[in-house]
Amino acid sequence: MAVVKSTLPDTALKTTGEALQSTLVDLLGLSLIAKQAHWNIVGPRFRSIHLQLDEVVDAARSYADAVAERAAALGVSPDGRPETVASAGALPAAKDGWLQDTEVVELLVDALGTMIGRLREHIAATEQADLVTQDLLIGITATLEKQHWMFQAEDSPLRA
Amino acid sequence: MAVVKSTLPDTALKTTGEALQSTLVDLLGLSLIAKQAHWNIVGPRFRSIHLQLDEVVDAARSYADAVAERAAALGVSPDGRPETVASAGALPAAKDGWLQDTEVVELLVDALGTMIGRLREHIAATEQADLVTQDLLIGITATLEKQHWMFQAEDSPLRA
Amino acid sequence: MAVVKSTLPDTALKTTGEALQSTLVDLLGLSLIAKQAHWNIVGPRFRSIHLQLDEVVDAARSYADAVAERAAALGVSPDGRPETVASAGALPAAKDGWLQDTEVVELLVDALGTMIGRLREHIAATEQADLVTQDLLIGITATLEKQHWMFQAEDSPLRA
Amino acid sequence: MAVVKSTLPDTALKTTGEALQSTLVDLLGLSLIAKQAHWNIVGPRFRSIHLQLDEVVDAARSYADAVAERAAALGVSPDGRPETVASAGALPAAKDGWLQDTEVVELLVDALGTMIGRLREHIAATEQADLVTQDLLIGITATLEKQHWMFQAEDSPLRA
Amino acid sequence: MAVVKSTLPDTALKTTGEALQSTLVDLLGLSLIAKQAHWNIVGPRFRSIHLQLDEVVDAARSYADAVAERAAALGVSPDGRPETVASAGALPAAKDGWLQDTEVVELLVDALGTMIGRLREHIAATEQADLVTQDLLIGITATLEKQHWMFQAEDSPLRA
Amino acid sequence: MAVVKSTLPDTALKTTGEALQSTLVDLLGLSLIAKQAHWNIVGPRFRSIHLQLDEVVDAARSYADAVAERAAALGVSPDGRPETVASAGALPAAKDGWLQDTEVVELLVDALGTMIGRLREHIAATEQADLVTQDLLIGITATLEKQHWMFQAEDSPLRA
Amino acid sequence: MAVVKSTLPDTALKTTGEALQSTLVDLLGLSLIAKQAHWNIVGPRFRSIHLQLDEVVDAARSYADAVAERAAALGVSPDGRPETVASAGALPAAKDGWLQDTEVVELLVDALGTMIGRLREHIAATEQADLVTQDLLIGITATLEKQHWMFQAEDSPLRA
Amino acid sequence: MAVVKSTLPDTALKTTGEALQSTLVDLLGLSLIAKQAHWNIVGPRFRSIHLQLDEVVDAARSYADAVAERAAALGVSPDGRPETVASAGALPAAKDGWLQDTEVVELLVDALGTMIGRLREHIAATEQADLVTQDLLIGITATLEKQHWMFQAEDSPLRA
Amino acid sequence: MAVVKSTLPDTALKTTGEALQSTLVDLLGLSLIAKQAHWNIVGPRFRSIHLQLDEVVDAARSYADAVAERAAALGVSPDGRPETVASAGALPAAKDGWLQDTEVVELLVDALGTMIGRLREHIAATEQADLVTQDLLIGITATLEKQHWMFQAEDSPLRA
Amino acid sequence: MAVVKSTLPDTALKTTGEALQSTLVDLLGLSLIAKQAHWNIVGPRFRSIHLQLDEVVDAARSYADAVAERAAALGVSPDGRPETVASAGALPAAKDGWLQDTEVVELLVDALGTMIGRLREHIAATEQADLVTQDLLIGITATLEKQHWMFQAEDSPLRA
Amino acid sequence: MAVVKSTLPDTALKTTGEALQSTLVDLLGLSLIAKQAHWNIVGPRFRSIHLQLDEVVDAARSYADAVAERAAALGVSPDGRPETVASAGALPAAKDGWLQDTEVVELLVDALGTMIGRLREHIAATEQADLVTQDLLIGITATLEKQHWMFQAEDSPLRA
Amino acid sequence: MAVVKSTLPDTALKTTGEALQSTLVDLLGLSLIAKQAHWNIVGPRFRSIHLQLDEVVDAARSYADAVAERAAALGVSPDGRPETVASAGALPAAKDGWLQDTEVVELLVDALGTMIGRLREHIAATEQADLVTQDLLIGITATLEKQHWMFQAEDSPLRA
Repeated sequence: MAVVKSTLPDTALKTTGEALQSTLVDLLGLSLIAKQAHWNIVGPRFRSIHLQLDEVVDAARSYADAVAERAAALGVSPDGRPETVASAGALPAAKDGWLQDTEVVELLVDALGTMIGRLREHIAATEQADLVTQDLLIGITATLEKQHWMFQAEDSPLRA
Repeated sequence: MAVVKSTLPDTALKTTGEALQSTLVDLLGLSLIAKQAHWNIVGPRFRSIHLQLDEVVDAARSYADAVAERAAALGVSPDGRPETVASAGALPAAKDGWLQDTEVVELLVDALGTMIGRLREHIAATEQADLVTQDLLIGITATLEKQHWMFQAEDSPLRA
Repeated sequence: MAVVKSTLPDTALKTTGEALQSTLVDLLGLSLIAKQAHWNIVGPRFRSIHLQLDEVVDAARSYADAVAERAAALGVSPDGRPETVASAGALPAAKDGWLQDTEVVELLVDALGTMIGRLREHIAATEQADLVTQDLLIGITATLEKQHWMFQAEDSPLRA
Repeated sequence: MAVVKSTLPDTALKTTGEALQSTLVDLLGLSLIAKQAHWNIVGPRFRSIHLQLDEVVDAARSYADAVAERAAALGVSPDGRPETVASAGALPAAKDGWLQDTEVVELLVDALGTMIGRLREHIAATEQADLVTQDLLIGITATLEKQHWMFQAEDSPLRA
Repeated sequence: MAVVKSTLPDTALKTTGEALQSTLVDLLGLSLIAKQAHWNIVGPRFRSIHLQLDEVVDAARSYADAVAERAAALGVSPDGRPETVASAGALPAAKDGWLQDTEVVELLVDALGTMIGRLREHIAATEQADLVTQDLLIGITATLEKQHWMFQAEDSPLRA
Repeated sequence: MAVVKSTLPDTALKTTGEALQSTLVDLLGLSLIAKQAHWNIVGPRFRSIHLQLDEVVDAARSYADAVAERAAALGVSPDGRPETVASAGALPAAKDGWLQDTEVVELLVDALGTMIGRLREHIAATEQADLVTQDLLIGITATLEKQHWMFQAEDSPLRA
Repeated sequence: MAVVKSTLPDTALKTTGEALQSTLVDLLGLSLIAKQAHWNIVGPRFRSIHLQLDEVVDAARSYADAVAERAAALGVSPDGRPETVASAGALPAAKDGWLQDTEVVELLVDALGTMIGRLREHIAATEQADLVTQDLLIGITATLEKQHWMFQAEDSPLRA
Repeated sequence: MAVVKSTLPDTALKTTGEALQSTLVDLLGLSLIAKQAHWNIVGPRFRSIHLQLDEVVDAARSYADAVAERAAALGVSPDGRPETVASAGALPAAKDGWLQDTEVVELLVDALGTMIGRLREHIAATEQADLVTQDLLIGITATLEKQHWMFQAEDSPLRA
Repeated sequence: MAVVKSTLPDTALKTTGEALQSTLVDLLGLSLIAKQAHWNIVGPRFRSIHLQLDEVVDAARSYADAVAERAAALGVSPDGRPETVASAGALPAAKDGWLQDTEVVELLVDALGTMIGRLREHIAATEQADLVTQDLLIGITATLEKQHWMFQAEDSPLRA
Repeated sequence: MAVVKSTLPDTALKTTGEALQSTLVDLLGLSLIAKQAHWNIVGPRFRSIHLQLDEVVDAARSYADAVAERAAALGVSPDGRPETVASAGALPAAKDGWLQDTEVVELLVDALGTMIGRLREHIAATEQADLVTQDLLIGITATLEKQHWMFQAEDSPLRA
Repeated sequence: MAVVKSTLPDTALKTTGEALQSTLVDLLGLSLIAKQAHWNIVGPRFRSIHLQLDEVVDAARSYADAVAERAAALGVSPDGRPETVASAGALPAAKDGWLQDTEVVELLVDALGTMIGRLREHIAATEQADLVTQDLLIGITATLEKQHWMFQAEDSPLRA
Repeated sequence: MAVVKSTLPDTALKTTGEALQSTLVDLLGLSLIAKQAHWNIVGPRFRSIHLQLDEVVDAARSYADAVAERAAALGVSPDGRPETVASAGALPAAKDGWLQDTEVVELLVDALGTMIGRLREHIAATEQADLVTQDLLIGITATLEKQHWMFQAEDSPLRA
């Protein structure tokens, strides 16, 4: 039953709805993983990265809200329940227990890289379906790519 | 391996660590369920309850941070990963799709009631183990009991 | 006489100018209708919707300013005079006198739906003409579709 | 004994002092009644009216301060002690225990209506006695009449 | 049908209601005309007057809200719909297209002068009918007369 | 009839409810007495104490709200009506009329001392009944004891 | 030469203009005298009164601006030059050098009392001439009478 | 040596990197030129334009930061060193010494027009290469076109 | 009688005290003259200069406070009474009535120039007497010389 | 001589007073030591730890104020004089001169650990004596244990 | 070992370093003494002086930070450890226990006077050594001399 | 041609103008170099230094504004055009491309050291010429020397 009447035709709606639901799950997963790292990190860069991880969490939570409300605005019920986040997420899992600072940097580079790849597919898919949604996904990608650079820059490749 | 040296003796630490880990999982679960309801609610009280749910989310997120950092401060690695939240949570599940406003009120009364019951057990258990942790759990209970009242008051019992 | 020299070629300018002028009139009309409802609403949801209508008014006024200044920036004189708003608007009229809360919800769902339809045509039309203007129209559509959802959610479709 | 020397002649002072003292007692009573309703309200409009009642409380407290300090400025000792508020107040009493949301709306319409009637008499009486005090009473009346409208609008008269 | 019960007798209510409705239409018209000038002004004083016009718009919008809510508080449904603003307004019309800065100054001096004249009649008319409404109209007049002076001062009379 | 279902067993609820209701009445009484002194004080320390009394008022009002909402959260309807405050209060009464600054200091030392004594009894009584309520009462006591010290310090005992 | 065209008839303008000019000079004088006392006060109440005097200065400066701009808005050139303030002021002069705190209280009670008397005459005179100006003078009087009370309350009359 | 691994294919990266580097140099140049004018302007519109230029500087600095960090996020080292800004910039040079206000208006119209033309080419070029970067360039263009209009409006074309 | 004991030797104190008293009178005079111009200015640059004059007033008032409190801190009673400001000031007088914008610019250039000359003499004189006071006078001079430049820049010398 | 009359019996007062005095000295010592490290730290983590130390200083200063005012509120004169802090403190001393970042981390882990141990003894001791004081000590312990964890996490134990 | 390379020659560095170290110890001592008085003051001026002492504490702490960082910037390790503050300070000691308000005023006049004398010697000594440091010491002296005046003014010398 | 008439004699003006122009170019160069490093830095201290560099940029931009406006206030046209910054700057150049964190620390230590040396010469040179300018240069030096220390402290000299 369609509770909210969509302003999009059916095919466009299906494509857009899937892109939004997929992104919602990834963002909620990212927010949990980054918080996990925020609490469990140890090592000489503890404070620097402890603080930076909260910037990732803030961005992920804020974008999750925008994505879910965009889905609702199009008449698609968003699903962000704990069991859905755990089973439908595509991000790499964090390991149990304390995390060395270097492990955290790798985990975030990996998780952000995976998520950016999926977002770029959704951007392509929504080009014809809904420019409004595409615009939102582009904004999310820009922010995550900036965080992706920053965690890579922490990786210090010029040293070797 | 003990990364952070605890200031508590072993038995007290075990009791306290379990209370904190259990509360952390419940709070993260609560934050996801309340957001789910925030996005999927429909009905004449949409706006009122849509806004109140975000107060629950803010409280749950903020206390989750305090609880996890308290665990870390005692030398216990907190676990708030998506898979843990989904499997270890004790709160009632939200159903799929749109939610009528009356259903949302019932869901929150139920979830908050369950969580308060568990918190009161942890408060009793930490009385001997760690007064600092007990104090934190008391603060959480006070806030959730206030929300519990507010959702019950929405339930309009004088009408019948 | 061209007061401000446009940075767009003539055909693109004509398309873009018409889209902006049409949107300006709709936004100013929306701001007046929503204020009218804000003042005349009665019924048990008075306060909730009274407040939400001011969010619509704020958005409409702020976007009207952005749209008119975009037109001016392209060398097109914007027209938002009272007589133009009254004669060129395409939104449904509000009826005279007090308005029941359920009537207000229907009026807003209707007005926002009409306006979104027109905006989606302008988005398509400006794709070739001016991407900067299109981007502005996309942002307006996203905001109005979110309000459109919220007023539909107030309509409580799961009840029947 | 006159502690503060009044800038008004004796007759004018008597009229003005009585108007201020009467208004002070009503405002303090209104602040207590509205808080009582804020805490005891139940029903589907719980949150909406719970919040609106605090606006009444804030206005009543702030005006009580202005009225009492105006009295003091004229050399009249204001009396806002608990026993005076209980015995000299003219507002309808709230009943004991929980209050249904519809009862709260009626209580406030009634209390505000009573108080506005008394204020309009004081405005007439101070026209000759002290324009500065009259100006203050006019401002209070404007605010209370706005609240009076809002609680009446909640009463949904178009429905019947 | 009287939705909101007035606290004024019938004759006083009629006079007061007409003064408020007339002022509401003028204020909404002024806000649209000043925005029109804000967007279309050109000339060496562009920036100075572009900014000052937004002060007029802000005042007009804020007073329109106060006036309409005052009418509602007295039980008179206010009418600020686009078609009413266009047909019932008494202010001089702005001409189409770009406006030279000197033309803008004249337009505002003229519009403000017209509106102040009408307000002074309403102030006289409400002296017996409702002092609370009169007080509001006095405040509006004070603000518009200050703007009236400022636009006249821009007109540089000492030069000639 | 129990509108809000309590999370406490019956005996604990009775003890806790009485402690909260008694404290509510004392806090509302304190807020009125301190305001009375704020308005009627005269003497060379007028400004210093006039300002400090408003700190007492702010604390009393804010704690009254917390206490009443705590009662409601436990399922106990709080009673803060004017007649209850006047008849059930245990604080010393303020005398009529202007108050010398030295009298005000004595009145506050006395009222705060009385109230702290009663609070310490409630803290003992709620130790077994409800730790969450006890925690709130402890916080109130700490604040009032600080004010108690400050008014005693004003009393200047080293002089004699 | 009339630079700004007045919206008042000639007789009304003369009365109003004189009231405004007289008040402007008094307010500027008051701001200078209160600052003089702020800098030169000595004695055990130094800090209390030093701070309160700056509240008088802020009020006097802010009202001086409102009064002068009201005069300009009516087409009357306001005169607040140093030589005018010195020669046309009616307030008591401060004596040279340091001022005991008790002398400062007397000086302010005296200066405020004188000024309030003159303001009440202007309020009466402008009743027929210009209600907008009268409203401004009433607001100034209310503020100065409140300060007048506070400095009298400092004078501690109950002691003797 | 690639320090940050790009998420774009090589050709897309080259196009995007060149667009960003070119825009960075223009923005830094614009910020220096606008500051130069801010300091050296003379003439009757001194203050108006002195203030408006700082808005250009703020926008240019803020966008330069966003553009450079976008480049870094893509793995392209941005170059904003003084020697690069001086040699690679395409904006018209400011002349030495004091600048008449009319000259400043022309300089900014010219510099902004040049820069907008280049930005529109980069927007077209990045359409295929990277939509995220394109979105950023569109935002910059919108802001600069608004400034472009404002400086043209200062040029007063209706006069002649 | 020395109320405040100076930390400077007698000769140094005399020099410093005279420099501070002279500067205090000039600053108070400047604040009155700039306000007079703020209220009486007419002409096409009305709004620009009307606003800039308030910056001069704010600076003059704030420095007057610093200078007077510096004198008091050294044990010298400062004199800023109306009659002293009128008789001891060295600044050029403003003429009576409305002021053309060009006249205002000249008046401020003249007044600031005079005052800067006197300040530079005081800076030289306090070099040996008191470096703390000299530092304060240097700061005042810097601010006034900046305003001096700005009003000269308004004078547009390149035009001729 | 008891200046402030205590609300506690004598034995409870002695225990509580000693706990507060001991904690006051430790907190003042901690604030000085952390500032010393803030100024003298060198090494690659300079900035991160330089900033974190100021968080410790802010917490220590703010808690010192709360502890001292709690002692005063109970009638015990607090002693925080330089000679008392130096002779009665139990924290490890910082060495003279510059401090390597690793030394700073060790110093803080050590100082915080010592202080937490003493606080836990005071918490146990005040359980019977004064719950209000115990509550304050619990809050301090929670904050210091969080800092203790953070400095340990900086110590990077997973590396070895 | 010189950790930070100084930009001053050796003799200048020695003079400057001693002045800074001496001032640092005095400022830290002053902050502790003023806090001691803030907590232990009793008497009728309790609140006024209690608040003023915190202004002294804030200034002393903020200047201590600036002085210590200035020393470090010059390559001199600052020493603000508890034992140094206790042994190297030159300020008069506060006596044990409660302090009458008149004693506090004398203590502060004495401590500030002593410290200003030492600062004036350091200002003279650094004239040749380092003007940047001298400028900082001048600023500190200005602030402390202002406080010195205020505490003397509280001493009420005109009374006798 | 002298647009702004200087208040300094010719020789003093020449010395002062050269000091200001030289400092302006250095500050603009420093702001560009620090931004370049902000964008290109890589390595384990990435985030710490990335943030600190923006503090350098903010200080450099803010001082550049103060220096340029001081020059204008003295009648000397400041020159901050891109070509001047590139050719007249005396700071070490940053190398092309990504920068290791250790390289950035060295670059900043070097650039700040160079600039401080030049500033100290200008401070000496302006002692006779213009104390106001000297005071400004002293403030800049203090800030840069503090940054100089901080980057040296990052250099970790105790390690070796």
